[in-house]
Amino acid sequence: MNIICNKSSLLKSVGTVIRAVSQKTTMPILQCILLKAEGNSFTLTANDLELGIHCASDAVVKKEGSVAVNAKIFSEIIRRLPDDEIIIDSDDQDNITISCGKSKFNIPGQKGNDFPLLPEVQSENQMVLPQNEFRQMIQKTIFSIAQEDSGRPVLTGELIDVRDGYLYLVAVDGFRISMQRTDISGEKTFKMTVPGKALNELNKILSSEEDDLMTVMFTGRHILFKMDQTVLVSRLLEGEFLNYERNLGMSFTTRAYVNKKELLDSIDRAALISKEGKNSPVRFDIRQDRMIITSNTEAGSAYEEVAIRLEGEGMVTAFNPKYYMDALRAIDDDTVCILYSSSLSPCIIQGAQGENYKYFILPIRLN
Amino acid sequence: MNIICNKSSLLKSVGTVIRAVSQKTTMPILQCILLKAEGNSFTLTANDLELGIHCASDAVVKKEGSVAVNAKIFSEIIRRLPDDEIIIDSDDQDNITISCGKSKFNIPGQKGNDFPLLPEVQSENQMVLPQNEFRQMIQKTIFSIAQEDSGRPVLTGELIDVRDGYLYLVAVDGFRISMQRTDISGEKTFKMTVPGKALNELNKILSSEEDDLMTVMFTGRHILFKMDQTVLVSRLLEGEFLNYERNLGMSFTTRAYVNKKELLDSIDRAALISKEGKNSPVRFDIRQDRMIITSNTEAGSAYEEVAIRLEGEGMVTAFNPKYYMDALRAIDDDTVCILYSSSLSPCIIQGAQGENYKYFILPIRLN
Repeated sequence: MNIICNKSSLLKSVGTVIRAVSQKTTMPILQCILLKAEGNSFTLTANDLELGIHCASDAVVKKEGSVAVNAKIFSEIIRRLPDDEIIIDSDDQDNITISCGKSKFNIPGQKGNDFPLLPEVQSENQMVLPQNEFRQMIQKTIFSIAQEDSGRPVLTGELIDVRDGYLYLVAVDGFRISMQRTDISGEKTFKMTVPGKALNELNKILSSEEDDLMTVMFTGRHILFKMDQTVLVSRLLEGEFLNYERNLGMSFTTRAYVNKKELLDSIDRAALISKEGKNSPVRFDIRQDRMIITSNTEAGSAYEEVAIRLEGEGMVTAFNPKYYMDALRAIDDDTVCILYSSSLSPCIIQGAQGENYKYFILPIRLN
Repeated sequence: MNIICNKSSLLKSVGTVIRAVSQKTTMPILQCILLKAEGNSFTLTANDLELGIHCASDAVVKKEGSVAVNAKIFSEIIRRLPDDEIIIDSDDQDNITISCGKSKFNIPGQKGNDFPLLPEVQSENQMVLPQNEFRQMIQKTIFSIAQEDSGRPVLTGELIDVRDGYLYLVAVDGFRISMQRTDISGEKTFKMTVPGKALNELNKILSSEEDDLMTVMFTGRHILFKMDQTVLVSRLLEGEFLNYERNLGMSFTTRAYVNKKELLDSIDRAALISKEGKNSPVRFDIRQDRMIITSNTEAGSAYEEVAIRLEGEGMVTAFNPKYYMDALRAIDDDTVCILYSSSLSPCIIQGAQGENYKYFILPIRLN
């Protein structure tokens, strides 16, 4: 293989695909990026067998061929080269030469044919979504997926649930539910669970331009996101996701409307005392015109007041302040609406108008 | 004690003194900041028994007194309070109340009298130095002090050596010497070794304004730096410092003048290959018009060329690339002068004109 490219576009492609390079594998080929020159196209691919990313990069192909190169050293070399023309050449023994100005590197490669192919995702199941919107939906939910060691593998991903003209993105960790939804055209109904890792990497790749679209394709086992020059493929998680609709559909008798920033700052302060008491709960005393937020541990006590507008009866509840703050930080609106039904029931934080996001949090019983 | 202050000036003072709060102590009082109101002045002090910082802060004193407060929780509370007037009150049982707007915290304190006093440093030995210049001298040397576990406690600090109208600041770790000097008025001659930790914290406190001065006072055991509202006191390190003058005074037969950035970038790239071979040396082949920089390990090989102007004979040497890069990164000049005498001798990196800084590096024997 022999190609000529420029540093900045190559570096961008390397930075994109390297997200799918395996960190902990004992298989050296999975620590590699596949470089492939075919016809006029030069592509880079990484694949940890759960997640794969493929990226086309601008280059002049002088000689076709492919070679796998250790991702870490390749990316560090490319990053440090001057902003100039780079020539990459590999010989029959898969020795790779990288030349740029007066710099020249020789590093050993591996056979391109040994690199695992990305799964084929050819399917009639397709949808087109705005990249920036989906990126924000990920950011506003992914913090509440379950940890890898939670014993619930399916909850380490997020549910994509398409029904009734909406796409719902839902994350659940057993203590809270984060849901974002958006309008979507089409009549189809389906559910699938995408691993958190894939969504985390997708979040970093997706464009923040308002008009950029992506195509999503899926089979029963895999999902593929196609953005301009880049394709991300992930396997789907198996197993039954939590029936989140039942929780979010609960009936609530009390609604408190409150300024998001004031509430967030007050909980943040009260949580300082709570943290010193090993994450003890923060207490919310909801009154007619204000919410009194207190925490009390051996480290001391905190007292905070926030003005609210209440519909329904006041009550006293207690929650893990971290879950509350995670939700509030993910919300753009200035005013939020918090729904309660009783002291020991969950609450839901949602928009003051509309229901395009909902954060559901389980309460803590006060001693 | 009862004082009223504003959030931003209190936060700044807390941020300054907290650098001297002990991280690993089992004595709770050393995890505290001493708050003291006396006459019209409000001061904060922290002291880990090796390093102490004292800071005056603007406040209205309503009632004199002192109390010690846990530094971590106090600083986190102050940081999160709104930008408003803060009232701090302590009662006879050393309970502390912090009030600000609708926020109120109660936290337990400790007796102010139990807090260890800073050492007195009254001495005729004084000098006045520009803060910004001394800050830069620290930054340009401190990376080559010895590690705590090096077995040479005195080399974990930097030597301040005043003689012949100069102040020399010198750091040595057994493999390299970093020296910066500046003109100083006065006839006095003295040497003392200041702990690296004290200089690191001083570096963060010193002003970057060109005109700000500080007063330095010292006895045989302690050094005191006085800046505007802040005083930093450190014990000195005992033991004989390395005789650095002998090393820096060696005679050299070859001088190479080279562009600093080109050299740094080239070594940085060659070091990538060296790093994969567990920090093997980088080889410098110094020729009449250029320096050829190569490294060669099982991870591959790198070849770099940099133009130079040579005075004297060319030669081949090898160095630890990290030490070379640390020195080059600390230099502001565009062109540096590198002094050699033979393949197995140290080199010195210094300014193309003048000798206000010198970096001395021991060579590595090539296999």
